Amino acid sequence: MTSRRPAGRARQEPSRRDDGGLGGEQVEGRRAVRELLVGRRRVRTVWVSSAAEPSALLDEIVSLAGPSLRETSPERIASLARTDVHQGVIATADAIRAASLDDLLGDPSAFLVALDGVTDPRNLGAVARVAETAGATGLVIPRHRAARITPAVAKSAAGAIEHLPIASVSGIPSALERAARAEVWVVGLDGSGDRDLYDLDLVDQPVVLVFGAEGRGLGRLTRQRCDVVAGIPMHGRIGSLNVAAAAAIACHEVARRRIADGA
Amino acid sequence: MTSRRPAGRARQEPSRRDDGGLGGEQVEGRRAVRELLVGRRRVRTVWVSSAAEPSALLDEIVSLAGPSLRETSPERIASLARTDVHQGVIATADAIRAASLDDLLGDPSAFLVALDGVTDPRNLGAVARVAETAGATGLVIPRHRAARITPAVAKSAAGAIEHLPIASVSGIPSALERAARAEVWVVGLDGSGDRDLYDLDLVDQPVVLVFGAEGRGLGRLTRQRCDVVAGIPMHGRIGSLNVAAAAAIACHEVARRRIADGA
Repeated sequence: MTSRRPAGRARQEPSRRDDGGLGGEQVEGRRAVRELLVGRRRVRTVWVSSAAEPSALLDEIVSLAGPSLRETSPERIASLARTDVHQGVIATADAIRAASLDDLLGDPSAFLVALDGVTDPRNLGAVARVAETAGATGLVIPRHRAARITPAVAKSAAGAIEHLPIASVSGIPSALERAARAEVWVVGLDGSGDRDLYDLDLVDQPVVLVFGAEGRGLGRLTRQRCDVVAGIPMHGRIGSLNVAAAAAIACHEVARRRIADGA
Repeated sequence: MTSRRPAGRARQEPSRRDDGGLGGEQVEGRRAVRELLVGRRRVRTVWVSSAAEPSALLDEIVSLAGPSLRETSPERIASLARTDVHQGVIATADAIRAASLDDLLGDPSAFLVALDGVTDPRNLGAVARVAETAGATGLVIPRHRAARITPAVAKSAAGAIEHLPIASVSGIPSALERAARAEVWVVGLDGSGDRDLYDLDLVDQPVVLVFGAEGRGLGRLTRQRCDVVAGIPMHGRIGSLNVAAAAAIACHEVARRRIADGA
């Protein structure tokens, strides 16, 4: 367990993170690289293995990459790779720039997802992916103690990090205080919630859904900052979902309700 | 790509699989072992590391394990482990017995999930977990070419495999034919579906939801056996979900509709 750190920010963060960069400089896997190439970042190099299995997606990557394309040996790809799921394609790019939390909160259609202490890279990437497909307008992650946008996160996100604005905050509880001041409804999702996700009126107000780490759930301070804590009904004998599954269900429920009600 | 095998079954399967065993003899991780201990299988040994971090869940495991408990060194745990997420707890048990597809199809409240070519163990386990939490009555997996219940599957399922009946079939298309004969509605989920998940009448008939492997989607023969192929609406720029997220959304939509309509 990492102990809480005092506030002195400049001392604790490497200087490369002070410019708003969230990582993400290396992206591996075909879907992730494809989305990088149609996204907003400057792409440096797209490495493609000379042994890469042909596919329509690979053809598209080659075409989109243009002069940044470099064909190289499988051995070189293996030495560059930081995951084992690169599918013969690795790209480097400028870091992802953090979005402004105030900008995200100021959107009258705000549909945000905040993660409180989710450190597993696959889970962080998977949550970004389900949020983006549900039409979320931003992701809020804590600057300390949580996963950055590593190659494993980028791969699991399957390109979502190229399109979904991500704000990095000093703490989730204080971010939720700012959400409340901006009149954004704060909905915590937790197995112990006293409301049912499906009973919430999710249609016509800006909202931030808050998810905690698997096992520990929402932190005490985070929970105090929620306007409501809701659960997803469990119908079997095991009583919990992993955070990516919970986020898939809750985010797409928001999408369903907004569409059904023509919002 | 594995080529299709001819039908001669006895030649191709190790004898230990002919008795209906699906694997699952080794279970790692606290939630998974906890559910094993309250499930239907005979448990042989529960190994707990002498360095395991205390928790309420660990206390419960120790209490439930009774005489099958063995405390051992972290080194021994590491040598037994077949995943890196064992959390200091590993159990051995009888293999999981396969359920009968006909029994699953004969349930008037059947709510089944069939997986067509999903081989990633984390995805297989994650689908079992979301299906169980949604009240599914069974999982259908192909005998060949797909993941068995390995320790990685068991861990990712977080105990769902102890409670959710699992049928192992020679092929998903023929299993779906049998579903149709049993008047179970066959709903394929695929990004290319021509219907919307939320427009389906999911309330009052037995149903099997069919998911394909990420990237390739539903196989051609599988698709032909579906009464309908439906998609989950995508609201962002990336156009797809991983199979575990799609299953989370679709299974919990069935649960929501059945509950909302008092079925």
